Amino acid sequence: MSKPVRIALDAMGGDIGPSVVVPGAAIALRRNPDSAFVFYGDERAIAPLLDEHSALKAVCRIVHTDVAVRMDDKPSQALRQGRKTSSMWLAIDAVKSGEADIAVSAGNTGALMAMATVHLKTMAGVERPAISAIWPTLAARGRGIVLDMGATIGADARQLVDFAVMGAAMAKIVFGLDRPTVGLLNVGVEEMKGVEQVKGAAAILREHGEDFIYRGFVEGNDISKGTVDVVVTEGFSGNIALKTAEGTARQVATVLREEIGRSWRTKLGYLLAKPAFNALRKQMDPNNYNGGVFLGLNGIVIKAHGGSNPEGFAAAVELGHDMARYDLLAKISAGLATYDRLKEAPAVGAAIS
Amino acid sequence: MSKPVRIALDAMGGDIGPSVVVPGAAIALRRNPDSAFVFYGDERAIAPLLDEHSALKAVCRIVHTDVAVRMDDKPSQALRQGRKTSSMWLAIDAVKSGEADIAVSAGNTGALMAMATVHLKTMAGVERPAISAIWPTLAARGRGIVLDMGATIGADARQLVDFAVMGAAMAKIVFGLDRPTVGLLNVGVEEMKGVEQVKGAAAILREHGEDFIYRGFVEGNDISKGTVDVVVTEGFSGNIALKTAEGTARQVATVLREEIGRSWRTKLGYLLAKPAFNALRKQMDPNNYNGGVFLGLNGIVIKAHGGSNPEGFAAAVELGHDMARYDLLAKISAGLATYDRLKEAPAVGAAIS
Repeated sequence: MSKPVRIALDAMGGDIGPSVVVPGAAIALRRNPDSAFVFYGDERAIAPLLDEHSALKAVCRIVHTDVAVRMDDKPSQALRQGRKTSSMWLAIDAVKSGEADIAVSAGNTGALMAMATVHLKTMAGVERPAISAIWPTLAARGRGIVLDMGATIGADARQLVDFAVMGAAMAKIVFGLDRPTVGLLNVGVEEMKGVEQVKGAAAILREHGEDFIYRGFVEGNDISKGTVDVVVTEGFSGNIALKTAEGTARQVATVLREEIGRSWRTKLGYLLAKPAFNALRKQMDPNNYNGGVFLGLNGIVIKAHGGSNPEGFAAAVELGHDMARYDLLAKISAGLATYDRLKEAPAVGAAIS
Repeated sequence: MSKPVRIALDAMGGDIGPSVVVPGAAIALRRNPDSAFVFYGDERAIAPLLDEHSALKAVCRIVHTDVAVRMDDKPSQALRQGRKTSSMWLAIDAVKSGEADIAVSAGNTGALMAMATVHLKTMAGVERPAISAIWPTLAARGRGIVLDMGATIGADARQLVDFAVMGAAMAKIVFGLDRPTVGLLNVGVEEMKGVEQVKGAAAILREHGEDFIYRGFVEGNDISKGTVDVVVTEGFSGNIALKTAEGTARQVATVLREEIGRSWRTKLGYLLAKPAFNALRKQMDPNNYNGGVFLGLNGIVIKAHGGSNPEGFAAAVELGHDMARYDLLAKISAGLATYDRLKEAPAVGAAIS
């Protein structure tokens, strides 16, 4: 077996903390036995839970801290009160010091991004980080990557290009592709539409032919269609798209449930059709697509959904495991290098200016 | 009966043209007998269709033109080739000259917006127009208004405030409300998130107490929840949200259909539960919420969905009818006046700067 992937877990993150994180880690370990864990958090809460998971207990240790970032802490508050002491910070610090290969937290996104950016800093050549999401799609593979989910509001053309490179690097690992397809989110192909940043990024990406296949502009409905492997946009619209999609899926489910409840006939029909509904739920369940990967930092940090169950948390850990095992950071660096050569080309300089 | 609402119809707009527009107008007339119509387009195509609709034939006339804007024309192309001659331009011109109270087109959005803006111009005190959408929601009323859908990419704080005023004026008519609730679309309430324009608009709207109730920031999932009557955002994120929601609804339906087709049991279940599916479809069908109202221009122009059926086109005409009957433009002007007084107040000046 290869050298284990060392995983630092913020045991106090999320709505529930250790009672999800510990069994989640146990599931992740079963799927990837080449893993070792450190739990950061309240030892009194973590240790008893490990008794039920002997395999996990054998490959983990606990680093105790009483300080936990709360889900409603503001990022500045979290940094002020939790720097160097909180379970979230300590997990990130393990990545910084090289003791761990990845950090995973279900804690509050703003605080996690603030701490990770302050402590790990952005990679050489990357100005701003991004948060990626794995999105259920209608494409044969059933999944796509969308970024940024809100780390960089109003990204400029160069930052969007960085996001394309980073998203493609992630897609290579997650989907096992040599050259993933990449699209820029826009509001239509008509002239006068679209913003300068998006057009500037398109001008650069059209010249960028080695690392991934640039497919041009895509629109909001292309995300769920799965038109491309990676959809790139700045953080405001990405976050709006994510929340709108979640809201719409919930809306459809709610309306259907209400309508089904109206008669015995429809209720019976639902019982018979239940396998289809279960399959739908499974396909759309955020727990199956858990894990926002922070991209562009000197280290791998994964944000698990705050409301994760153990399965969902395990999915986030597995995603991080693969990012480390198949060397996300090296893939991003290689992609950025291609782009650096490109930036020096005068033709592209003209296209951006 | 009060004076009829005079409706100018671009008979050549949309994927199908007169074969949808004429029967659509006939349906709209049955619902609102206080209507009169002018069809702009190819008389040879329109006149025979009217023979099937005698009531409509009695209250309409045809203005012939051979020029039609195509669905894939660029706005600049449409303006160059169709100015003063196309069915789309002539319908807008009827509003401009006062011959019609509203214009309705299922033609291409970019061309319609370009022609309407060039010809009608923005209202006094409004810098930029917006396109509003009526959105199916889970709120008791089942509908909300969202704007802008792509007319003004990257609206600034003042423009967002104008959109709030215009959306509220529309909500008063569509939902019959005295003081609709309004929210600003944002990516979370945490600090460091959100853009300056949104924060600036929020600072102004917090002081704006007469015309509508400002409820603060909302997120993408609040649109379908129906947290507020009117959701305000700039055109890029609004368009992304709309297309993402459409894509997600289609994705859920597609996955469910595929899963239901897998066995006889689930197929039978579907047959029994069909009334619930029909109700869902009806509730989410864009044809029932048809009509993007162009807001902020000196005249009422309604964009019907390009793929409308007659029912859908009729819904867009009815929406326009109400906008004219209940005097949208006067309501917007009144709302803007409140805001003008506010702009002069020094406290708010400080809040924006």
